[in-house]
Amino acid sequence: MDDTTKKAVTQRLASAAGHIKGIERMVNDDVYCIDIIQQIQAVQAALAKVNTLMLDNHLHTCVTSAIRGDDPDERERMLQEITQVFEVTGKK
Amino acid sequence: MDDTTKKAVTQRLASAAGHIKGIERMVNDDVYCIDIIQQIQAVQAALAKVNTLMLDNHLHTCVTSAIRGDDPDERERMLQEITQVFEVTGKK
Amino acid sequence: MDDTTKKAVTQRLASAAGHIKGIERMVNDDVYCIDIIQQIQAVQAALAKVNTLMLDNHLHTCVTSAIRGDDPDERERMLQEITQVFEVTGKK
Amino acid sequence: MDDTTKKAVTQRLASAAGHIKGIERMVNDDVYCIDIIQQIQAVQAALAKVNTLMLDNHLHTCVTSAIRGDDPDERERMLQEITQVFEVTGKK
Repeated sequence: MDDTTKKAVTQRLASAAGHIKGIERMVNDDVYCIDIIQQIQAVQAALAKVNTLMLDNHLHTCVTSAIRGDDPDERERMLQEITQVFEVTGKK
Repeated sequence: MDDTTKKAVTQRLASAAGHIKGIERMVNDDVYCIDIIQQIQAVQAALAKVNTLMLDNHLHTCVTSAIRGDDPDERERMLQEITQVFEVTGKK
Repeated sequence: MDDTTKKAVTQRLASAAGHIKGIERMVNDDVYCIDIIQQIQAVQAALAKVNTLMLDNHLHTCVTSAIRGDDPDERERMLQEITQVFEVTGKK
Repeated sequence: MDDTTKKAVTQRLASAAGHIKGIERMVNDDVYCIDIIQQIQAVQAALAKVNTLMLDNHLHTCVTSAIRGDDPDERERMLQEITQVFEVTGKK
């Protein structure tokens, strides 16, 4: 991962973890359920954004190298991984 | 929220926050992008499960009380909230 | 289902079916894959909207009656169905 | 799109359109709302599968050609399209 992406990703992950700790406190403080569910949905959206950043970087680095490279198995593996990640994302 | 649900929810949230801290370390250790994306997808699925637990509890408590209660505005508000949460979930 | 919802739902379903027939033609005409995928995503969003309309109507009719009714099994079944539909939606 | 994919995709789209016409009839016949919602969810899953098939084919054809090609703008455009499709899928 390039340094810019790595920094963006770790910051967003740290922020998501902090957000979840805040939601734990909301649960313990008996905050209204729907408000808590909406906060969890916000974390889910933030994690989806992290995945998009990482996929974008992955396509520009590993996948591009593999497609230009001489190893057809490696190339095929890379493309299958993209399809699998896409398939799971459609089920999130 | 009843105590059983509260305990289940806070444990799952603590576990999700810990999982994300682990993913941060994976990013700093330059673990392969696709492996990281799959871990993030696992956290997203865990958070979806928390939302299901909370919605189930909410339906059995607040929503049931409101529907049986005498305040039509309160009842309407509750039902609209369910629909909104459902709508956002379909976009996660 | 009340008549307004029924009319809205059948119109939207007819429109979605027509949209899919158009996408079939796009495939046969060798339209660019990404353009086709985006059209399919538009149909998926339209179907999600139909589900929201139907759930909203269901909550205001059957679920409200069951919660006010005297049959605890029926009530429980209704609430579980809502949770299940919500769970599947989070995986769509 | 290669012929095998094109055939698989058009068959699945025709099947989805037929499924939706069946759901329209269910609505007109006053079938229970939750049963209808579940049928719509099945169509949504079928359409997600079509998108996966098409993306897989697209990666093996257009994207592979572009990455191996000499046009950096074309390459960049292709990779951005993949990321965009992924982003929208996470919101379906």
